[in-house]
Amino acid sequence: MVKDIWFKELHTEDSGILFRGRVLFHQKSDYQEILVIENSTYGRILVLDGCVMTTEKDEAFYHEMLVHPALMTHEDPKRVLIIGGGDGGALRETLKHPVERVVLVELDQMVLDVAKEFFSNLSKSFEDPRALVLAQDGVEFVKETKETFDIIIVDSPDPIGFAKELFSQTFYKNAYKRLDQGGILVAQTESPLLHMNLLKRIKRHFEEIFFDTRIYLTVVPTYPGALWSFTMGALKRIPEIPRKDPPPNLRVYSIETHRAAFALPPFVNDAIS
Amino acid sequence: MVKDIWFKELHTEDSGILFRGRVLFHQKSDYQEILVIENSTYGRILVLDGCVMTTEKDEAFYHEMLVHPALMTHEDPKRVLIIGGGDGGALRETLKHPVERVVLVELDQMVLDVAKEFFSNLSKSFEDPRALVLAQDGVEFVKETKETFDIIIVDSPDPIGFAKELFSQTFYKNAYKRLDQGGILVAQTESPLLHMNLLKRIKRHFEEIFFDTRIYLTVVPTYPGALWSFTMGALKRIPEIPRKDPPPNLRVYSIETHRAAFALPPFVNDAIS
Repeated sequence: MVKDIWFKELHTEDSGILFRGRVLFHQKSDYQEILVIENSTYGRILVLDGCVMTTEKDEAFYHEMLVHPALMTHEDPKRVLIIGGGDGGALRETLKHPVERVVLVELDQMVLDVAKEFFSNLSKSFEDPRALVLAQDGVEFVKETKETFDIIIVDSPDPIGFAKELFSQTFYKNAYKRLDQGGILVAQTESPLLHMNLLKRIKRHFEEIFFDTRIYLTVVPTYPGALWSFTMGALKRIPEIPRKDPPPNLRVYSIETHRAAFALPPFVNDAIS
Repeated sequence: MVKDIWFKELHTEDSGILFRGRVLFHQKSDYQEILVIENSTYGRILVLDGCVMTTEKDEAFYHEMLVHPALMTHEDPKRVLIIGGGDGGALRETLKHPVERVVLVELDQMVLDVAKEFFSNLSKSFEDPRALVLAQDGVEFVKETKETFDIIIVDSPDPIGFAKELFSQTFYKNAYKRLDQGGILVAQTESPLLHMNLLKRIKRHFEEIFFDTRIYLTVVPTYPGALWSFTMGALKRIPEIPRKDPPPNLRVYSIETHRAAFALPPFVNDAIS
């Protein structure tokens, strides 16, 4: 019988979350320390370099709200690029739309392997014939590729270490060049409660590049600050409400929660304007 | 020099949050254990019987979204009853409206005293001439009083021990009898992520009593599950959008976030319908 461990993640120097659970996997890859814990409240938890990336219980908040607002805003998205997102959750949600090709570029092969072995509900999307899953550096990929996309989704870890580049103006500019007419880029941009300066900086970057930039929010209970932001940049005006029907059987996204996500609390509006 | 402690709150048997900080107050009252911690991320934290009740950093999410939707929905609220809410936050928000009289009934005198000493930003409202602050049992108060109110706000702790009654059908029925024509009752009703059965039960209770019942959500980062519910019952139809202007300088509430709060994710809608 394997003994449970208590796992702690500090979100700031003096606050954080903790989970007790059985360790299903714990190994260092070329890029990071990968840990999978089985917890009775949140299900399986993927931890990269000590930070909770996703849990079975609350992953729908993050993945549905990362993917569907952009896919629903674009009139007819056919080709989608996902940078990061090695757990497969963003890919799974993207494939619920009538897309033709989705390229997922995850830096770390071991993350893809761990997703396949321990998070089948997320990674089942890897087998879809429309999906191309690459273990490559996303920063390099957007710089080098000649392919263009209707949607680019930046599903990055926190802006620490190698992932820092994914929050840089250079990266956003290179990604922008890979967008087709009417294209949309969406990125996870951390918590307005704990990382407001980052969010403000990214909004400025987007506004320098895109015709229209919008920030929207969701709750991700196991993320630092719980209130979580996404920044969307588009080559044309972003309408308030999408004009098509969402895929069936979503848990968090609907036309109503889409509109609601863009209703920012005054303290966020004040800080970013 | 006082040493910092690590404070842990388990939200379930194997998940929770933790804060490091200086203990400013720690004493047993007649009803509960009261702890105040000073934390550099969340500011001062009020803990009752091991559960975080409020923190300076995120209290606006809870207090503004507990109070303003009801006060904004009622056409002309003049008399308000607050059950619980001994920290003063709900009272402070209520007094931002042109009300004439607000009665706050908090069971525990020591909570009122601690709020006065350590949470002046919340408890400054105690001194308002329109406020009557009573240290009494709220369950008994609604049973005995002959006074009626336009709004009743149930700002209770979690449904454990003495607070359990504040989630009972008997209590809601007695509160209902204290409402004037057009009256509204609003209660904090825990997290749909971790306490869905409770939320479903309360919705049924409300629907037996009220002409119109609505559930709405906000995020309270330091509460279990982070996604938090409120249940509103009214003696007439609850409109989708309030038809007056909110008080100035709110941090979380606006007409937009009011409407957004009622846009429930499909998994919540499915569970409660």
